[in-house]
Amino acid sequence: MDIEDLILVSVDDHIVEPPDMFDAHVPDRWRDQAPRSVRMEDGSDVWVFEGIKVPNIGLNAVVGRPKEEYGWDPTAYTDIRPGCYDHVERVKDMNLNGVLSSMCFPSFVQFCGQLFSKAKDKEMSYVMLRAYNDWHIDEWCGSHPGRFIPLSIPPIWDPELMAAEVARVAAKGCTAVTFSEDPSALGWPSLHSEHWDPFYRACVEHDVRICLHIGSSSKLVMLEDAPMDVLISLQPVNSIQAFANVLWSPVLKRFPDLRFALSEGGIGWLPYALERVDYVYQQHRFWTKADFGDKLPSERAREVFTFCFIDDKAGVAERDRIGIDNITWECDYPHSDSTWPHAPEMAMKHFAGVSDEEINKITHLNAMKAFRFDPFQHIARDAATVGALRGLAASGG
Amino acid sequence: MDIEDLILVSVDDHIVEPPDMFDAHVPDRWRDQAPRSVRMEDGSDVWVFEGIKVPNIGLNAVVGRPKEEYGWDPTAYTDIRPGCYDHVERVKDMNLNGVLSSMCFPSFVQFCGQLFSKAKDKEMSYVMLRAYNDWHIDEWCGSHPGRFIPLSIPPIWDPELMAAEVARVAAKGCTAVTFSEDPSALGWPSLHSEHWDPFYRACVEHDVRICLHIGSSSKLVMLEDAPMDVLISLQPVNSIQAFANVLWSPVLKRFPDLRFALSEGGIGWLPYALERVDYVYQQHRFWTKADFGDKLPSERAREVFTFCFIDDKAGVAERDRIGIDNITWECDYPHSDSTWPHAPEMAMKHFAGVSDEEINKITHLNAMKAFRFDPFQHIARDAATVGALRGLAASGG
Repeated sequence: MDIEDLILVSVDDHIVEPPDMFDAHVPDRWRDQAPRSVRMEDGSDVWVFEGIKVPNIGLNAVVGRPKEEYGWDPTAYTDIRPGCYDHVERVKDMNLNGVLSSMCFPSFVQFCGQLFSKAKDKEMSYVMLRAYNDWHIDEWCGSHPGRFIPLSIPPIWDPELMAAEVARVAAKGCTAVTFSEDPSALGWPSLHSEHWDPFYRACVEHDVRICLHIGSSSKLVMLEDAPMDVLISLQPVNSIQAFANVLWSPVLKRFPDLRFALSEGGIGWLPYALERVDYVYQQHRFWTKADFGDKLPSERAREVFTFCFIDDKAGVAERDRIGIDNITWECDYPHSDSTWPHAPEMAMKHFAGVSDEEINKITHLNAMKAFRFDPFQHIARDAATVGALRGLAASGG
Repeated sequence: MDIEDLILVSVDDHIVEPPDMFDAHVPDRWRDQAPRSVRMEDGSDVWVFEGIKVPNIGLNAVVGRPKEEYGWDPTAYTDIRPGCYDHVERVKDMNLNGVLSSMCFPSFVQFCGQLFSKAKDKEMSYVMLRAYNDWHIDEWCGSHPGRFIPLSIPPIWDPELMAAEVARVAAKGCTAVTFSEDPSALGWPSLHSEHWDPFYRACVEHDVRICLHIGSSSKLVMLEDAPMDVLISLQPVNSIQAFANVLWSPVLKRFPDLRFALSEGGIGWLPYALERVDYVYQQHRFWTKADFGDKLPSERAREVFTFCFIDDKAGVAERDRIGIDNITWECDYPHSDSTWPHAPEMAMKHFAGVSDEEINKITHLNAMKAFRFDPFQHIARDAATVGALRGLAASGG
């Protein structure tokens, strides 16, 4: 395949939410209580919600900056690339990078909307959460049909409300929801708990995939006195843990059709992890009583999960050990691991010797299937390639 | 290569220490204070040391048992295979399994001799620790030249004593010492700390390799309410963490010639981990100020570490991405992950398409080099093969 002919659908990017996001989506009587962006005396922008202040520029939105500036988290909208928070500018940046479609995770409300769970007034908070999802689905995604895969955040403080919200947004085409890789780390019951069953049931009923993003436990692996590089290197460990924790969970017995996406966890560890769970099953099932019926744990994993990578030579080379139908691709715009604006060139480095059919699965077909998302309802296939999108960017279109 | 011609040197097995181990190695005036094995009323055997009681059968010594009984930790010597604690029987079990040589880790004193650090009387405790090492080196290993790679435990409460002990046992040929994968988890300074410099300096001076065994932080990855299978599946995560923590550590700047072995951590995660640290270096070194000079982190890792595996198809298949000179093999006798007595058959499964030269590196040459251990000083090469050893076992020799 030629680089111009790649079709790239990214299952993990990030939004820095814009100041006006709630304006059109909160009913009048609640308007005064909506989170608002405030410029502080030190020049930083913060969100204020029920007295809680949170930085509004999450997780180093450093795209487009020289690498020397990484690590210094920008703190004001004026410091960051408009594509971080403006959907029209985002689409232009996607064109420049040859990316057809993108799933975008939240920033200031945290990965599974933790901020809304901290409000004392939960009725108000639920209003704001729905406004957030409406803004994301109707405005950010809705303004550009075929360019964004909608993703909702859950009212994590109440599993019945979570179920209701899954149903509500499913009705307008949202097929993905963020959840926590380890809710127990956030003070909630573990993901194994029946506490979450209403939510899980709704996800199955509406065929909605649960996305577990690294860091969605608000916890990263950290070792005492370790250099920052250790923390960054070990980020994928969160996904390794979530993979094992979900795979052996009684939840998959209660809800066999539940489906998960591991977001930003990489894929190169999977040949080993899939082999490891089979070995553990072979050696230990007689006393742990684990039971996968007529399947191996690795086979079950391939039914349950999709995985994704940014830049992962070993993973792509060993795609047969992972499962070619389970691998998706991501860009991670605008974070510091992102390959923007060279994503197609980076991706092509891994695709030598990979068949066109396999490349298409990895770059877009698997993501389209997992999230029941069809950009070609809106965009012609030949207008969806890297070459066409970059041509569009070059022409200013 | 034919299975009969394999030469297997295992860098990770375990001793269940025998009751009489201290008898010949503690000076008379200290004899009463040596740890002693006591049979309890419930039929279990425990070690008693300065009032502290510890089970003497560590970490499921289940070798030879049906898998249905795994998980039930045997508690008395009479419950376990004599090869667990008797070196003559151990050698017979090694012959039966075609294993030429073995490095054995401690059990009741814990992986880095933590038990001795808990004694109030440290002078006495230091006597016992040296007796432990003397027993291990002179008696367990010394009775069977060429069959065991000696490994010492350190007086972890005092880095100057650690240095002295490294020097003392190096003089009698001990080239390996256990340490903690994360000493901060045991209440000591982190492995990055200058606190340990006397120890590190002695290891460099005497060319002694530091072994970091999974679990040597007395900490395993555990997630709330998770089935036991999750814990077992995630054991290698300890080694992934130790790998990153050592590689980026300022310790390797202070002691460039320091060398580590990651014990029982597997190898299949390394193609990804090595790629990941290079990616982190490429993306983040400008602000983290990490500096590997003219090398990549992955290249430095191949200088610093040896890795080992029990059963690891993906790792062996991807040996070029790991580094053929860095891979060693282990049997893990008598623990539940062990391949005994079918280790050669299990190993051969992975060796299709692997050259004889590569097989020899993996099965024994790399271990011999890493630990400066030469069994062929004592045993003829053609008597060291799986075929010859198993023949010896069959003949009762």
